[in-house]
Amino acid sequence: MLLTNRQLRLKSRPKGLVSRDNFDLVEKAVPNLKDGEVLLRTLYISMDPTNRVWMRDIPQYLAPVAIGEVMRAIGLGRVVASRSSHYAEGDLVQGITGWQDYFVLREGATGYVRLPADPGIPLPTLLGAAGMNGVTAYYGMTDIAPVQPGETLVVSAAAGSVGSIAGQIGKIRGARVVGIAGGAEKCRYLVDDLGFDVGVNYKADDFRQQLKAATPDGVHVNFENVGGEVMRTVLSRMVIGGRVALCGLISGYNADERPSDDFGPFIMKRLSMRGFLVLDYTKTREAVGALGEWIREGKIKTEETVAEGLENAPVVLNRLFDGSHRGKLVLRV
Amino acid sequence: MLLTNRQLRLKSRPKGLVSRDNFDLVEKAVPNLKDGEVLLRTLYISMDPTNRVWMRDIPQYLAPVAIGEVMRAIGLGRVVASRSSHYAEGDLVQGITGWQDYFVLREGATGYVRLPADPGIPLPTLLGAAGMNGVTAYYGMTDIAPVQPGETLVVSAAAGSVGSIAGQIGKIRGARVVGIAGGAEKCRYLVDDLGFDVGVNYKADDFRQQLKAATPDGVHVNFENVGGEVMRTVLSRMVIGGRVALCGLISGYNADERPSDDFGPFIMKRLSMRGFLVLDYTKTREAVGALGEWIREGKIKTEETVAEGLENAPVVLNRLFDGSHRGKLVLRV
Repeated sequence: MLLTNRQLRLKSRPKGLVSRDNFDLVEKAVPNLKDGEVLLRTLYISMDPTNRVWMRDIPQYLAPVAIGEVMRAIGLGRVVASRSSHYAEGDLVQGITGWQDYFVLREGATGYVRLPADPGIPLPTLLGAAGMNGVTAYYGMTDIAPVQPGETLVVSAAAGSVGSIAGQIGKIRGARVVGIAGGAEKCRYLVDDLGFDVGVNYKADDFRQQLKAATPDGVHVNFENVGGEVMRTVLSRMVIGGRVALCGLISGYNADERPSDDFGPFIMKRLSMRGFLVLDYTKTREAVGALGEWIREGKIKTEETVAEGLENAPVVLNRLFDGSHRGKLVLRV
Repeated sequence: MLLTNRQLRLKSRPKGLVSRDNFDLVEKAVPNLKDGEVLLRTLYISMDPTNRVWMRDIPQYLAPVAIGEVMRAIGLGRVVASRSSHYAEGDLVQGITGWQDYFVLREGATGYVRLPADPGIPLPTLLGAAGMNGVTAYYGMTDIAPVQPGETLVVSAAAGSVGSIAGQIGKIRGARVVGIAGGAEKCRYLVDDLGFDVGVNYKADDFRQQLKAATPDGVHVNFENVGGEVMRTVLSRMVIGGRVALCGLISGYNADERPSDDFGPFIMKRLSMRGFLVLDYTKTREAVGALGEWIREGKIKTEETVAEGLENAPVVLNRLFDGSHRGKLVLRV
């Protein structure tokens, strides 16, 4: 059987939003497997802000995707052929799949997690709340800047894949949780569906006043995904000795230059901040176990937006930045 | 005896550098003491970057100095009359004296330290390396971002009152210490007189290359006093997991708006940063004891620049920002 693998290869570096023209759609024959290799069919691709960063030729935590290279992305694949004793046909595997229909995994490659053929959780959720995004939120709230009962937690991009989980973990930990999101509808969703105490709309003219009213005791912990003006406003509400878990700075990922930040409040209010990446956590069993249990118990609600079609990946990615989705954004291949 | 007290009262908020015109020189009769009060003659006034911040009408850790108020400053005074059993004539007292010849201290006021009449350390040093500046450096290097043997520490404003001590404590702790200062002469001073490993001149065209060459293993700890472009360059050299003790941001204190900062490297390199103020450390006996011993043993070298005349305080303060002094800048009243 001759299989064709469609790949999206980076052709040029986007300026601002990503365009289809930044990628070449290439068709290649799937190669024959060697000993120790497995072939995976990509089922779902995770759409993450970090994809946009990987397209940029700037210093970062992984090498930028090179021109001509298959776009790097996390995904979920199913084993369709195996010449490895570690993987059986039908197994699910999560890890870097790239923007392509198939990929060949060599046994022993790091960063891949084998999942049972039927994991008991919807597949898109495995890429979000029960996967990398949930694990990110989990360590942010338990290791980087643990929030304590009675404290006020502010989460930005709170209707997003990481923020929505971080806020719900904050509630489980007994904090007052304020979420920042774009638009009244998302703010209602935070409160009515996810159980946040308050949702604050950063697009409103009176955003600053809304946030002030929502944080009468100040902000003890900021789980930050956005940066720029949103973060500046949150910092203005921090208490002395407040802590920042710096998870993302999405406001700047499409910009040539990041909106300017200000270290000033860190002295005035003796704040501490820690940046973190989920890839530094290599033993995630505890986190994945806790998240799975919370999801099954209904203590954490999840939502996924599923888009269709590998060829649409570039334009679907832009939805992360225009605020037109909720929860986890995935692409069904 | 009728004593006259000269006071410098804030008349208008400076724009950029401070001018004599921003202050009114007022002469007042020293009031009669009530029970529990002592009269102190100001001997030395500490010139600190934070004075410039206190003149600004922005949110900060203490209220800004109000228009018409005596300029707030730390100083060293000698008791010339006492109606308190806690203070004897001749005692030295350190604390907020303000820009004035005399001040009345009420017994029990917080933030004042009584020193023996002859403390065995030169008086200007008591305001610097053996006082607030040394204590700041001490907690920065032992509590906020302790540097470990073999690690690389970079200190900015390294020839200044806090930086010079922070770097020397770094050497005592066994670190490789790189100091950033303005000009070749100061860089020589750091290495030849203070025992730093390297001095890097931020005014040189090849500052970035110099810093890179001086930190072949990257930077583990940044004791930061400057901010702006200098800090940005240091952050570009941080190792993964590096720590920042954020002590000052002097590059922005005269500016209407701070030079823009960038939180980006904090995610990419998983950095942590803690801002701090020495006033949060209320039990400083350990620090003062250690500093005094290091100074007496010659393990910490100190230098003071002594300017003269209360009336010159506004223009002397500017010397903190033009780089024309080394070590501690004090004003003899």
